Amino acid sequence: MCGIVGYIGKLQAAPILLDGLEKLEYRGYDSAGIAVYDGKEINMLKAQGRLKVLNEISHGGEKLPGTLGIGHTRWATHGAPSDINAHPHFNADKSIVVVHNGIIENYLKLKKKLEKKGYKFVSETDTEIIAHLLDYYYDGNPLRAITKVMHRMEGSYALGIIFSDHPEELYAVRKDSPLIVGHTDGGSIIASDVPAVLKYTRDVVFIENEEIVRLTEESMEFFNVDEEPIEKTATHIDWDVNAAEKGGYEHFMLKEMYEQPKAIMDTFSPRLKNGNIVIEELGMSEEDIRSIRKIMIVACGSAYHTGMTSKYVFEGLARIPVEVDLASEFRYRNPILDEGTLLIVVSQSGETADTLAALREAKDKGVRVLGIVNVVGSSIAREADNVMYTWAGPEIAVATTKAYSAQLISLYLLAMKFAHVRGELSDKGLADMIEELKELPTQVEMLLNNKNKIQKFANRYLAAKSIFFIGRGIDYAISLEGSLKLKEVSYIHSEAYAAGELKHGTISLIEEGTLVCSVLTQEELYKKTISNMVEVKTRGAFVMAVTNVDNTEVEKAADYVIYLPKTNKYFTNSLAIIPLQLFGYYVAVGRGCDVDKPRNLAKSVTVE
Amino acid sequence: MCGIVGYIGKLQAAPILLDGLEKLEYRGYDSAGIAVYDGKEINMLKAQGRLKVLNEISHGGEKLPGTLGIGHTRWATHGAPSDINAHPHFNADKSIVVVHNGIIENYLKLKKKLEKKGYKFVSETDTEIIAHLLDYYYDGNPLRAITKVMHRMEGSYALGIIFSDHPEELYAVRKDSPLIVGHTDGGSIIASDVPAVLKYTRDVVFIENEEIVRLTEESMEFFNVDEEPIEKTATHIDWDVNAAEKGGYEHFMLKEMYEQPKAIMDTFSPRLKNGNIVIEELGMSEEDIRSIRKIMIVACGSAYHTGMTSKYVFEGLARIPVEVDLASEFRYRNPILDEGTLLIVVSQSGETADTLAALREAKDKGVRVLGIVNVVGSSIAREADNVMYTWAGPEIAVATTKAYSAQLISLYLLAMKFAHVRGELSDKGLADMIEELKELPTQVEMLLNNKNKIQKFANRYLAAKSIFFIGRGIDYAISLEGSLKLKEVSYIHSEAYAAGELKHGTISLIEEGTLVCSVLTQEELYKKTISNMVEVKTRGAFVMAVTNVDNTEVEKAADYVIYLPKTNKYFTNSLAIIPLQLFGYYVAVGRGCDVDKPRNLAKSVTVE
Repeated sequence: MCGIVGYIGKLQAAPILLDGLEKLEYRGYDSAGIAVYDGKEINMLKAQGRLKVLNEISHGGEKLPGTLGIGHTRWATHGAPSDINAHPHFNADKSIVVVHNGIIENYLKLKKKLEKKGYKFVSETDTEIIAHLLDYYYDGNPLRAITKVMHRMEGSYALGIIFSDHPEELYAVRKDSPLIVGHTDGGSIIASDVPAVLKYTRDVVFIENEEIVRLTEESMEFFNVDEEPIEKTATHIDWDVNAAEKGGYEHFMLKEMYEQPKAIMDTFSPRLKNGNIVIEELGMSEEDIRSIRKIMIVACGSAYHTGMTSKYVFEGLARIPVEVDLASEFRYRNPILDEGTLLIVVSQSGETADTLAALREAKDKGVRVLGIVNVVGSSIAREADNVMYTWAGPEIAVATTKAYSAQLISLYLLAMKFAHVRGELSDKGLADMIEELKELPTQVEMLLNNKNKIQKFANRYLAAKSIFFIGRGIDYAISLEGSLKLKEVSYIHSEAYAAGELKHGTISLIEEGTLVCSVLTQEELYKKTISNMVEVKTRGAFVMAVTNVDNTEVEKAADYVIYLPKTNKYFTNSLAIIPLQLFGYYVAVGRGCDVDKPRNLAKSVTVE
Repeated sequence: MCGIVGYIGKLQAAPILLDGLEKLEYRGYDSAGIAVYDGKEINMLKAQGRLKVLNEISHGGEKLPGTLGIGHTRWATHGAPSDINAHPHFNADKSIVVVHNGIIENYLKLKKKLEKKGYKFVSETDTEIIAHLLDYYYDGNPLRAITKVMHRMEGSYALGIIFSDHPEELYAVRKDSPLIVGHTDGGSIIASDVPAVLKYTRDVVFIENEEIVRLTEESMEFFNVDEEPIEKTATHIDWDVNAAEKGGYEHFMLKEMYEQPKAIMDTFSPRLKNGNIVIEELGMSEEDIRSIRKIMIVACGSAYHTGMTSKYVFEGLARIPVEVDLASEFRYRNPILDEGTLLIVVSQSGETADTLAALREAKDKGVRVLGIVNVVGSSIAREADNVMYTWAGPEIAVATTKAYSAQLISLYLLAMKFAHVRGELSDKGLADMIEELKELPTQVEMLLNNKNKIQKFANRYLAAKSIFFIGRGIDYAISLEGSLKLKEVSYIHSEAYAAGELKHGTISLIEEGTLVCSVLTQEELYKKTISNMVEVKTRGAFVMAVTNVDNTEVEKAADYVIYLPKTNKYFTNSLAIIPLQLFGYYVAVGRGCDVDKPRNLAKSVTVE
């Protein structure tokens, strides 16, 4: 998500930091900052907005003398994008400075503890507590302070740290957030991603979880959390810069598909506390939740499809009636919004023009609006009455994958919470669902690892004229998203149908060899959908099925089957979409399409 | 709708009648009957079901001696299909017998009057009152009795009449329901459609509105309603039997498109009484209507699209929240049905399996169900709490046109009535809308007469791979139906989008020359949709627009424009769909598709 760079060596640090941050620009950010030790003290410059601003105010780094420094580009999570919330962050006397990628889940607890000890906070970030915690445990031994802090933090982090009383050393650690280090002529460098270091070295060491590195001008030393030295070997990078940006993946879309387990985990894990679902930023009391009489979910594109799915989840689990509407339709139809209606708007960017307009329309009518967005401080985040963040990190590929998956998780969490508060879901039921939720990242990873099999299959359909997706209920919502992925990136005309509707017209399009992808994840609908599969198969279609591992019955009607591991019936979208994303992706790759930037499309649709 | 045959001459009448009815079988019917004068009295045989049954019980007609008779195949409107409701119908002493096509709109008033005079009725039909009325006014002069009855009836009718005390004469009249007569060797014949007479003569006289014909073995005499003789000339029919069944049209689909003005009129005109909307069979009190808190419309295929349209009409006009669902989805999603919900199911056949199941699901949950169906006595008509008929007549082509148009009218009438009763629509507002409603048949006819222009345009797209339809609000609902028509009959993969959604994925499918049909009938959305047209045009699309006559602005963004006459903003679907039906039809014709029976499709989907 965010970008980290650090340098210690013979050269002036600041220009190197700025250059490294520039190389990480593709990852998205909303503010940036650098801190450099000048031989006496640590000087810092931070700025909201583009790196250009930071470059200007630092005169390309010249204004900050010194050969030891860290830098950061921030993608807001805790606290809006601003100069103050930008990294690096200091302790009180500015002797310790930190940059951080990731999320500290127990930061509120830690913050309270520090406040009791008299610590003051200037920013709204979770990162600032790290600087103060280091300060609190620091006894002159940086390594000891760092391990102590690591033992106390929950969450994910990659850190770059400078102690001004150890000006020959640069420290870095990681847990569940990437970090690499490299040694170059007369200096050492750290970064959150390969492109930032390629100019200086092609031999990098990938830091593993809970490992610490101490860099000097000449050396790199590695430690475990028990402060014991460990051996690490360097990896030679032979990718070009362009490939490096994609972390070795051919496209951002594939990279982001592979980031889905993390996006899912990052979205749910901070919200699970003592067997309960706590959504800090939601700002709705139990009374508020109980008084909801109807939910309207308004969104565009893939986000609309998450609404379609969650209609089933909210209605089935919480028994709250849900209406789902396209934002571009909702805003112009003078919708009837009764009292007790909660409007949920879903948007990755938080800037989608139609969705924002729908939000405003609803607020004008006095309806409470909850935003589910990926970008902290975005227009929707600011204007909604309440907000819930999807912590998917920046998404570069135009066709959404990980933001979609994170939106689903947010909506599941909401539905589970609402159902539990309203007495529709027992403690035991909630606990069971939470366990199933926790399985999802591993299950998604397992499905992603099937990619070669799906690529092989996709290669058979590179010349397809039309491809159809069918399903019922949640499976229809999954089909809609599977179809959209395919058409967005491959330019093949695909369309999704509620399986039972095929007979009412569209089945006339089925020809010998037409591919029909059938989604069957709802046990009570297996039979019905299988009979629709038989209908199309009889008329010559080639039928691919995506179904649960227990539904071997499907093989009677399918020519090709992808099985999904067992999960809760409301969570199946999170698994079933994976092979469909891979299918769309590989068809597009096979056809030589510009996968990450499909023709005619923009990432964030800020026009109507 | 129904079929009429009559014969007077030298040969035995009954076999000729049965043969003629068989030729009209393609029009659909649910019961049949014949009546023949045997020299002393009139004998009658009637049977529900197929003609085969009537053939069997009459021994191919042999059981009914006599050379003067009338016959009928019935498609139920007033009164369920049954032996008793089948035609012909007698007066009390069986001296007058009548067969009837059409609908007598003021039959309840006439029936009451006759009942006061002591007349008894055995059937539930509107036709039976004609026999009794003739009896009431009969003074020995058949012509005079017939004109008196014509002056008193409102509605549409083609009649065949026998008076047993005038056994050398067969009478027939028409108003707004087709009727032809012809003379053959030693006999005269009447029929509601050409195929029934082709075996005997190719020279037929088309009876015009409010004309009466008196046939004898040797002669045909024509009269106007003032009993004055008029001259008529015969038309020579050179169609083959197959074309004759289609009334000279190449396909039933085209014929039925041309029957839309009549289907629309037949559906609204019996419901307009003294400036009010009266839906006799509805069975809902004003109190019932006022207590509706939510409407759910559940249907499949084109009927589902009428639901999409009427969501805007009900919400906009009556301010009742409406949810529209596919029947195959609704029944399996354990829908939340609150008190005060009215479920409306829409189905041409009244036998659509998923729709019927949805009806049962809702009734089990205690929800009131209103059926909008075309077939009287169908399962949905029987099982719904209330029913409202679309009087489109039998539809033969698999792709619906006139039933769809009649469904729209029914839903408009309901919405107008609900809005008026609930105080959301003033008397003046209602009166204005009724005037606009009455314009629709003529306006539809005007649009149908554009067919050559549209055929020419359609011929340019016979090889299209994909065709897209876009619109917002009601225009999106129209687009969905336009797209379905095209894909059903032409097998071209077409798809409709809410115009504002294009940017969220599908616009990547637009290539140089792709046809995009844009529907713009809602003034407040003109600008928004035009900007979407510009988006696709910029990317190479050829843009056809269907819009109101006042929206010349559209020519900036469209390559080809079809203008619609001015109507109420809630009625635009009824006009805009006409060019789209014609377009789909002519693309299919040009591609040589089996238009009336597209591959893989069935007319009435009685399986799930």
